[in-house]
Amino acid sequence: MDRIGFIGLGRMGQPVARNLAASGHALAVWNRSPGKSGPLLEAGAVEVDRPSAACAPGAVVFTMLSDDRALEEVVSSEGFLDRLSPGGLHVSMSTVAPATSRRLAGRHEKAGSAFVAAPVFGRPDAAAARKLWVCVSGAPAGRERAIPFLRTIGQGIYEFGDDAGAASVAKLCGNFLIAAAMESMAEAFALGEKSGVAPGALAKLFGETLFSSPVYQNYGKSIAEKKFQPPGFALPLGLKDMSLVLAAAAEARAPMPVANLVRDRLLSGLARGREDYDWSALALGAAEDAGIA
Amino acid sequence: MDRIGFIGLGRMGQPVARNLAASGHALAVWNRSPGKSGPLLEAGAVEVDRPSAACAPGAVVFTMLSDDRALEEVVSSEGFLDRLSPGGLHVSMSTVAPATSRRLAGRHEKAGSAFVAAPVFGRPDAAAARKLWVCVSGAPAGRERAIPFLRTIGQGIYEFGDDAGAASVAKLCGNFLIAAAMESMAEAFALGEKSGVAPGALAKLFGETLFSSPVYQNYGKSIAEKKFQPPGFALPLGLKDMSLVLAAAAEARAPMPVANLVRDRLLSGLARGREDYDWSALALGAAEDAGIA
Amino acid sequence: MDRIGFIGLGRMGQPVARNLAASGHALAVWNRSPGKSGPLLEAGAVEVDRPSAACAPGAVVFTMLSDDRALEEVVSSEGFLDRLSPGGLHVSMSTVAPATSRRLAGRHEKAGSAFVAAPVFGRPDAAAARKLWVCVSGAPAGRERAIPFLRTIGQGIYEFGDDAGAASVAKLCGNFLIAAAMESMAEAFALGEKSGVAPGALAKLFGETLFSSPVYQNYGKSIAEKKFQPPGFALPLGLKDMSLVLAAAAEARAPMPVANLVRDRLLSGLARGREDYDWSALALGAAEDAGIA
Amino acid sequence: MDRIGFIGLGRMGQPVARNLAASGHALAVWNRSPGKSGPLLEAGAVEVDRPSAACAPGAVVFTMLSDDRALEEVVSSEGFLDRLSPGGLHVSMSTVAPATSRRLAGRHEKAGSAFVAAPVFGRPDAAAARKLWVCVSGAPAGRERAIPFLRTIGQGIYEFGDDAGAASVAKLCGNFLIAAAMESMAEAFALGEKSGVAPGALAKLFGETLFSSPVYQNYGKSIAEKKFQPPGFALPLGLKDMSLVLAAAAEARAPMPVANLVRDRLLSGLARGREDYDWSALALGAAEDAGIA
Repeated sequence: MDRIGFIGLGRMGQPVARNLAASGHALAVWNRSPGKSGPLLEAGAVEVDRPSAACAPGAVVFTMLSDDRALEEVVSSEGFLDRLSPGGLHVSMSTVAPATSRRLAGRHEKAGSAFVAAPVFGRPDAAAARKLWVCVSGAPAGRERAIPFLRTIGQGIYEFGDDAGAASVAKLCGNFLIAAAMESMAEAFALGEKSGVAPGALAKLFGETLFSSPVYQNYGKSIAEKKFQPPGFALPLGLKDMSLVLAAAAEARAPMPVANLVRDRLLSGLARGREDYDWSALALGAAEDAGIA
Repeated sequence: MDRIGFIGLGRMGQPVARNLAASGHALAVWNRSPGKSGPLLEAGAVEVDRPSAACAPGAVVFTMLSDDRALEEVVSSEGFLDRLSPGGLHVSMSTVAPATSRRLAGRHEKAGSAFVAAPVFGRPDAAAARKLWVCVSGAPAGRERAIPFLRTIGQGIYEFGDDAGAASVAKLCGNFLIAAAMESMAEAFALGEKSGVAPGALAKLFGETLFSSPVYQNYGKSIAEKKFQPPGFALPLGLKDMSLVLAAAAEARAPMPVANLVRDRLLSGLARGREDYDWSALALGAAEDAGIA
Repeated sequence: MDRIGFIGLGRMGQPVARNLAASGHALAVWNRSPGKSGPLLEAGAVEVDRPSAACAPGAVVFTMLSDDRALEEVVSSEGFLDRLSPGGLHVSMSTVAPATSRRLAGRHEKAGSAFVAAPVFGRPDAAAARKLWVCVSGAPAGRERAIPFLRTIGQGIYEFGDDAGAASVAKLCGNFLIAAAMESMAEAFALGEKSGVAPGALAKLFGETLFSSPVYQNYGKSIAEKKFQPPGFALPLGLKDMSLVLAAAAEARAPMPVANLVRDRLLSGLARGREDYDWSALALGAAEDAGIA
Repeated sequence: MDRIGFIGLGRMGQPVARNLAASGHALAVWNRSPGKSGPLLEAGAVEVDRPSAACAPGAVVFTMLSDDRALEEVVSSEGFLDRLSPGGLHVSMSTVAPATSRRLAGRHEKAGSAFVAAPVFGRPDAAAARKLWVCVSGAPAGRERAIPFLRTIGQGIYEFGDDAGAASVAKLCGNFLIAAAMESMAEAFALGEKSGVAPGALAKLFGETLFSSPVYQNYGKSIAEKKFQPPGFALPLGLKDMSLVLAAAAEARAPMPVANLVRDRLLSGLARGREDYDWSALALGAAEDAGIA
């Protein structure tokens, strides 16, 4: 079996890489800050000293990075695109701008390799349990090649066609919908609290009836309890994603007023010193406006 | 078994009354416009000629009316409160302002009877299938007496304590959360559509994964397809409810910016002549802003 | 010269009544809470013990009251409409809902008298200096009769036709534009302050150049200095007016997102205990969101 | 007298350069697209073939360009910074991001020259009439040297200290306030129109009383008349500026909800094909929402 590359061993990359290793793939791993590869080495992975060393002609390399810049730096790092071609495949799992995915797809194609966007929904525990939801888009041959790998890390795969940017759009839409649901609950719970109705009772009602899905259940509970630490997904990362949503919306000329609002709630959270809060702390905005935070 | 009163045989009242009749209760029914009681008469109900005739001392009367004014008129109609006391119980299932529920609870108490708010979540088909979710609040003795009846019409009951207004708050919060989810999907789908990602694919993704609940699944589909007729819950009724939400929020001093937005989407829908659309047509606002409606 | 009635001797009514008296009119004055008429008695006014006593058949009566309810109560008080007809004229200077002006115009017409809406722009000091701006609307004969009086209290009169509600619309639009300008400055100054640019320097720049009008100059200064006490126009009154704006907008089916925002800023001000602040304290919202309040 | 450079002969640069020439300065002019220098040559200017040729050691060069990118390209063009030093001064009159001004100030300082931001308020006709308002910031020596030139092109100069970004902040705040005033009038006029009150009468009232400044008078008239062509300041330029405002706000962590709204109105205008409209066409959004556009 061919060795595959895996770049980015953060909170999400780590469990995904482990699952790929556990599925029998030999991994060459790289992470910007060292010391993250221990458990993977035990599983047979080798650690390399630069991104390009995780690439081989015709091989597959995965990236799971924190933002657009980190992804661009890896792709632009010396030798990365050269080593991957001809015929290599880059499966990009980071949440980035659709425009970034499109631009990188173009660069890969020009260099003789393929780029597939494969961002995922799910927290680290879902990643560990192979329960991620994966969105995939890009050139058909690349998608076809990527999907068997992705099946080993997720519970479901959603294809969005040939445009490498499309999966990034879907991912951003999902994160936006989560933030919008949090803001909406925050407003409803503030109305409840100030009207003498316990937010916890409302969260239970809605989580069991109209909105019996994990987003409403889990975030509903933490918003009702105003419990935002420790962060599962830190507030600055949420702000980054909502900024990506709005940049994509500006590019597409599609106004999104609720996205403006949640972005501002997160921005205000930073202005008030909440770098270390979970992004669900955007809910504090509605509480503060109502004088109950 | 005692005869119970049922006032309001509209799209929701009709199936609820039938289920009460089918559970063995003898009903005295009244509806403002005549000709609605046919199926109930076959089930043993009797039709009366004025609201008070559906009341008897110590008996239970249900109301399921279109708005605050209709409810106030019934309660203020000649003989209604007099006939109900002593010891009667009014179970109010309409979606009304918390302040209305509180005021009516006070009037009933003064007149020697009890008032319980018991608004429901669910469309007429859910009502027919005894699948409603019921929120209940009011004086304990009244709640205790009401609950066995409510069990025969719903699949779950949520109690919100002694304040008759509390169940109305919960009901308004729920309708607000539905509207907020619709607006959020509308924005996400507009971004998708203008970025080359089919709204239907996004609706499928989210309905099966992050938001696998009926609200997102059903409304997601109709918003993706921009199919808003025939109305399940008409746009003017949605506007009425969002106006109640904002009035309650003003009274409680709890700003709700997303509620402002959805109210304005509905208001704009009326301004554009969409009286006969489903309230999910609020989604057209985001599409129009993006030039794709 | 005929005696005229004047009802409502608050901060605005007082100086207006004095100017009418100083112009040679004999006044019969009434105020809900006593002890306000002293300076007017010296100017020849007589104090009466109920609203209707300020009315006489065919005479003119002015009202300057705090809100719709106070105005409705005066008009509905025993004998008020009866004493005014036939041929009397009610000049209503309060800021009220257009619908209230229209309804009252109908009641006066039915009773054989006329109703003219004549709300004013300007603070008490402007009223004292006969510098108010007056908007007038209502039946032509009433307007024609009212205008000579209004000339003695203001520096300019703007006519808005036969619909008694029209002047109320104009007045509400003006107060909305003031609030919108305050919110806009608050946002600009928050950006400035957090970018190292002194809000006072920005207020000076704009007040002397692009926006060289009193609203921007005066409110710009107080917003830059975050000085909101003592109140010139109290925050709860501002909230009342913005609520009237939004009610009129709902009735007219005209969404006003900036009006929603300023209303919520004022609502949040009350939720935070700012009953005694000037309504320009709505500017604190933008500062709080930016972490600098 | 020393020759000064002038780069950017668009609608604003042209009249400013003419006024500098008319004040006795010898100009070396450059514009990206040729054929703009005719009238200046008659006034004694010479046309050069590249930006750096407009620079000389220790000399002053003005730029008036369309956006950040154009300004960055000029400064980065071959020889520009080299030729200016030692001791040259670049007076940048474009509306750009504060971060751009700061970054460019750093580059100039490093290269041995000075950079002063001097953005202006006013349309081309104001520029021709030497009626611009100028905001200035940057290192003191540079400001001191720039001001005598700026006096010959404007009617007033406002200094914002040593931070080169500060004048850019002030300029963006001003354009934001104009846009906010336009949106506010659009909402008020939509309420008026749908309530039977002519927008033109409202525009007249406010322009003569509360808001007797050119912004309200001129834009009020065009918004009341819904006359948005030909463009004085094109809608895409307005969108560019509001995007700069929001980027600066994000950087400063200062949420600006009204800025979000006006940005979205402009974005929606582009989505509906209004590239060739004046930016005051953002007012169409409120009209469309009210069903009257």
